[in-house]
Amino acid sequence: MSGFKTIHDHHHHFGWDNSLEPVLTVEPGAELELETIDSGGGQLNEASTAADVAKIDFSKVNPVTGPVYVEGAEPGDAVEVEILDFDESGWGWTGIIPGFGLLADEFTEPFMNISRYDEKRVVFQPGIELPTRPFPGTIGLALAEPGSHSVVPPRAQGGNLDVRDLTRGTKLWLPVAVPGALLSIGDTHAAQGDGEVCGTAVETAMTVRVRVNLVKGAGFANPRYEVTGAAASEPMPKGFYATTGVAPDLMDATKDAIRAMIDHLGKEYGLEPAMAYALCSVAVNLRISEVVDMPNWVVSAVLPKHIFV
Amino acid sequence: MSGFKTIHDHHHHFGWDNSLEPVLTVEPGAELELETIDSGGGQLNEASTAADVAKIDFSKVNPVTGPVYVEGAEPGDAVEVEILDFDESGWGWTGIIPGFGLLADEFTEPFMNISRYDEKRVVFQPGIELPTRPFPGTIGLALAEPGSHSVVPPRAQGGNLDVRDLTRGTKLWLPVAVPGALLSIGDTHAAQGDGEVCGTAVETAMTVRVRVNLVKGAGFANPRYEVTGAAASEPMPKGFYATTGVAPDLMDATKDAIRAMIDHLGKEYGLEPAMAYALCSVAVNLRISEVVDMPNWVVSAVLPKHIFV
Repeated sequence: MSGFKTIHDHHHHFGWDNSLEPVLTVEPGAELELETIDSGGGQLNEASTAADVAKIDFSKVNPVTGPVYVEGAEPGDAVEVEILDFDESGWGWTGIIPGFGLLADEFTEPFMNISRYDEKRVVFQPGIELPTRPFPGTIGLALAEPGSHSVVPPRAQGGNLDVRDLTRGTKLWLPVAVPGALLSIGDTHAAQGDGEVCGTAVETAMTVRVRVNLVKGAGFANPRYEVTGAAASEPMPKGFYATTGVAPDLMDATKDAIRAMIDHLGKEYGLEPAMAYALCSVAVNLRISEVVDMPNWVVSAVLPKHIFV
Repeated sequence: MSGFKTIHDHHHHFGWDNSLEPVLTVEPGAELELETIDSGGGQLNEASTAADVAKIDFSKVNPVTGPVYVEGAEPGDAVEVEILDFDESGWGWTGIIPGFGLLADEFTEPFMNISRYDEKRVVFQPGIELPTRPFPGTIGLALAEPGSHSVVPPRAQGGNLDVRDLTRGTKLWLPVAVPGALLSIGDTHAAQGDGEVCGTAVETAMTVRVRVNLVKGAGFANPRYEVTGAAASEPMPKGFYATTGVAPDLMDATKDAIRAMIDHLGKEYGLEPAMAYALCSVAVNLRISEVVDMPNWVVSAVLPKHIFV
């Protein structure tokens, strides 16, 4: 099958570390097929429950497949990752993990929801179906700093960006910090809202196909991306409902908007708070409506109504 | 013409003040036609320049038309404002006002751009055309607190929300703080991006037609809205380009994303920094991509490519 070079999922690592041995060296233009492990590190399955969330071994979470050495990449360049395609695995998990998430202080108990999905739709719950929109939550390069660095936070070199638009038809540019760049990919999601508010999306192992290129001397401070395909337009055939937060701090405004959306999902659709919070994480998109009307900013949480079937 | 009750633009005020005499009292279900004055208070015209921005008298900015007393409205209720239609005035201004805006520390000189528009498109500059998307930047109710309060910041009772989706086909719900609610509307925009980063949109006087209703006992903490019409889906026929900010503070991430977009607009389209910043304000949408991957959050600035014609 074509010129794709496959990297199997046993070639994974758990931190960004520029001393890791590359599993593959490629020329710019190479096409890669990467098997990923889900962000739970394979510790969960289709029958997992909230009790299993509570037992996760955190030393095994957030594995990424790689790293790949890109010939000619040097600090100041950008590695271009063109997202070509995905093979879906059929099920995914959305968990609330105590201590994580936007409303960690309010949602202190573990929670688990299992979705089934195919290439068209994610069945989150009976009557709630999201358009499938696969993307790798984590695409990143090694950091300049020596040592092993947690995969959890994204950084200038990308990593756990959780940008939902990094799906088919997208090019992502990542600033290179070390020779060869050392690209790794993981944390694949079948669907997610902008914000990923409960801390997890529809978490699922996938095989990802990408094309890797190099932009010499790009000089980018942070990742950039371009969405050229159908993913750029998102039809809202039934419109959307939005809640807002209004506060002098964007984080506070974000929390208030999500709290109001959880309230709305309870009153209008009968969802329990934890289920509503998890649904916000996979389906609700956070927008900064205004950030200039001193001293109060407005954040909107946008719920597409077509997910209720 | 139908049952619309008209409020002319000489019935305006400059602060939220619950002691203001209503200009009109209406029953729920009433249809209103409100003439607005632009946010510059009529001090600018189609020939205005940066020098005129520097001379603005701030005691005359942000006028709102009203207030309207809604029969039966009491604290705890929500006033529903259904946005029906607009009459456009043909031109609008986008200014950088020293001391205002997301990057006020970096853009310290006054700047002015005049757009012409019709019901379909806003010609921002030759070769740069935005879809016309009219909305009132300010829709709000009187506050519970006595005295006069600046119209600049939005609050729980709405006001200067600058939510770009409050266009035709949208219902907005505003929490009532005083008997009769005291609704006022102003600050109409022909187009704006999520964020309104330079502090102004395409600022323009318009006539706004709305239907006013009442939801008893809504109990909302902040404004909410629903977009039911064509405005909910925004086609991106040429895709979009996005820059990101990655930082432990959402405001810092937002600033970095806009700085990178200004850089991109300069290198790719030859725009001077102030023009690029103003274009971000009217056309670029800010999204919170993730707000859970401790300690770094990701904000994306999204540029629709179809604006370049």
